[in-house]
Amino acid sequence: MYQFKLLKKDPTSEARLGKICTPHGEVNTPVFMPVATQGTVKSLVPETVRDLGAEMILSNTYHLYLRPGHDIIKEFGGLHKFMNWSSPILTDSGGFQVYSLGALRKITDEGVIFQSHIDGSRHFISPELAVEIQEALGSDIMMCLDECTPYPAGFEEAEKSLELTVNWARKCKNSKKNDHQALFGIIQGGIYPDLRKRAVEDISVNIGFDGYALGGLSVGEPKEDMLSITKLITPLLPEDKPRYLMGAGTPEDIVTCVSYGIDMFDCVIPTRCARNGLLFTNHEKVVIKHARYRNDNLPVDSTCDCYTCRNYSRAYLRHLYMAKEILAMILNTIHNIRYYMHLMERIRAAIGDGRYQVFKKEFLNSCQLSADNCQG
Amino acid sequence: MYQFKLLKKDPTSEARLGKICTPHGEVNTPVFMPVATQGTVKSLVPETVRDLGAEMILSNTYHLYLRPGHDIIKEFGGLHKFMNWSSPILTDSGGFQVYSLGALRKITDEGVIFQSHIDGSRHFISPELAVEIQEALGSDIMMCLDECTPYPAGFEEAEKSLELTVNWARKCKNSKKNDHQALFGIIQGGIYPDLRKRAVEDISVNIGFDGYALGGLSVGEPKEDMLSITKLITPLLPEDKPRYLMGAGTPEDIVTCVSYGIDMFDCVIPTRCARNGLLFTNHEKVVIKHARYRNDNLPVDSTCDCYTCRNYSRAYLRHLYMAKEILAMILNTIHNIRYYMHLMERIRAAIGDGRYQVFKKEFLNSCQLSADNCQG
Repeated sequence: MYQFKLLKKDPTSEARLGKICTPHGEVNTPVFMPVATQGTVKSLVPETVRDLGAEMILSNTYHLYLRPGHDIIKEFGGLHKFMNWSSPILTDSGGFQVYSLGALRKITDEGVIFQSHIDGSRHFISPELAVEIQEALGSDIMMCLDECTPYPAGFEEAEKSLELTVNWARKCKNSKKNDHQALFGIIQGGIYPDLRKRAVEDISVNIGFDGYALGGLSVGEPKEDMLSITKLITPLLPEDKPRYLMGAGTPEDIVTCVSYGIDMFDCVIPTRCARNGLLFTNHEKVVIKHARYRNDNLPVDSTCDCYTCRNYSRAYLRHLYMAKEILAMILNTIHNIRYYMHLMERIRAAIGDGRYQVFKKEFLNSCQLSADNCQG
Repeated sequence: MYQFKLLKKDPTSEARLGKICTPHGEVNTPVFMPVATQGTVKSLVPETVRDLGAEMILSNTYHLYLRPGHDIIKEFGGLHKFMNWSSPILTDSGGFQVYSLGALRKITDEGVIFQSHIDGSRHFISPELAVEIQEALGSDIMMCLDECTPYPAGFEEAEKSLELTVNWARKCKNSKKNDHQALFGIIQGGIYPDLRKRAVEDISVNIGFDGYALGGLSVGEPKEDMLSITKLITPLLPEDKPRYLMGAGTPEDIVTCVSYGIDMFDCVIPTRCARNGLLFTNHEKVVIKHARYRNDNLPVDSTCDCYTCRNYSRAYLRHLYMAKEILAMILNTIHNIRYYMHLMERIRAAIGDGRYQVFKKEFLNSCQLSADNCQG
């Protein structure tokens, strides 16, 4: 049921056009997946998420395992039915969330022991259980349990961590029970090119998965390191499988990393920023609470086709935000998701036209310009 | 532009079918107005509110005066445009909100001095200014500034308060500048039938308005007093004008007071209860956080036609509520508003069929039954 079709390679960069086929429909790549941590893209009904152009969403196994429990979701026929989302879903393995718990977790060769952030209860997740949980959730793409190598980490620490991740990846693959759910391997190795290359060899050649993710980036390392590792490693991954940069990113990161050959992105930036009143546009970032918008009759972005921009002024959005109205979060989220989806449409069009390098340059220049304007 | 048409009188009670015609469309009565305090029905986009069956909403002058300011809303062409709601709007006068400020307000013959609940700034609202603000907002129905007589109040206190309200009502009418906005008078008088009757005489005969509201009820007095005053006073009001019971109420209150001749209601109950996880159904009140719904695959109400009931299980709604997701408030509000709108449809159908007394009896019996079940 699962298939990846590589449709086109940009002649001016490593960018690619593709299509991921899943039991719940097709996904055009490069794709950005809005985050539905607890089985909902925060503040939107799923029909709205789909209408905005989202073809796949990401849900967090860690959160759904703890609450409401994967057993309940399985009983309801899987996450798609439970949350009323009929398009593809990717679930992470819970590894990154457990990593984020810091002192509340302990890692062994067998898996991770951790305490729930909700009630402090103790849990153990093994590679096999991570797959079992994701099989219960019924996601279209599952992720192997990995150890997210912290930053900073010395070479030996990163190497040991990588070996654990490779070991767990093999266990994940061996414990997978069905064919209709894809399983992706995760490339760790910190900021060490040699370790990353070894990870590619181990994960993609020696084991082999339906797709590959770069993990352990955007965890505190300098942006240059994230970009240079992505630039170096992505082209080494098998061409006929999708490549997923976990947890990135800003519009600039996405545009840049597509040029390195990345096909898939997820990030909380558009939704979290929306709830905090930061709105993306093609010209500037709008901090909606600013007094300058008090009686601004313009939409957030006159060039945007979203429901929010078609119907509401900045002044109204500012009013809702200042008044702490829920509708502020709804309208802002609609706009930011639409901004990201439209960005992906522009990215795919540029690759389709074989002019990605030009698009990238223009886009990054315009970002620089608007940043300069902000400072001015 | 404003007109009220009395279409039918129920032969078995004082209930009436009517139609309010405004520059922004028609409203079938008896009507329930969802509350949009700060220019938004909390957690819903206006198209959803309309699709659920709402024909008129209520906004609070006090809140919009303080934030974003009626001057800004006027600059934007009025509240309808500002908030993207093209159907009728009723605005209260701010009197009740100021009353609710307690020690933060002082009432004189000329008006009310009060401190903002937002920043403590001092403000003065006169009857004339209350009308001016509502004219700036551009609502279809404006309310006179009144003093909400507190409960308990002695006869003399209530009498003095009533005289002030009558005095202010005259000033409001005299200061009104246009014909396309209707102005309603408010009947005060506490729980004293003689004062209420005098108020009817003063407000409806001696001054005369486009409609009449019963004010100062549901402010702490026993439910029997609210009902008996409403039952006694409503039929004394002019038959050819709409009658509005401010701030009521529960489904039971609405069904009962329609039988006394009330045409219009507003209340925060459906929206506030929704956000607190209390859902209305025809069988029981559902407290969605209860553990019994943990793996309940049924909708909130199998007989309900709302988006929430058509697409989501109680288990999912419970999950969203426990996880403090914004979508919980959205889906719950959709359901409760739909419940209220459907109730009003049933009320109007029963009056249309000339069997309101039977409907009322059956409805109140079913409420009693479900209350008994809850206790059992």
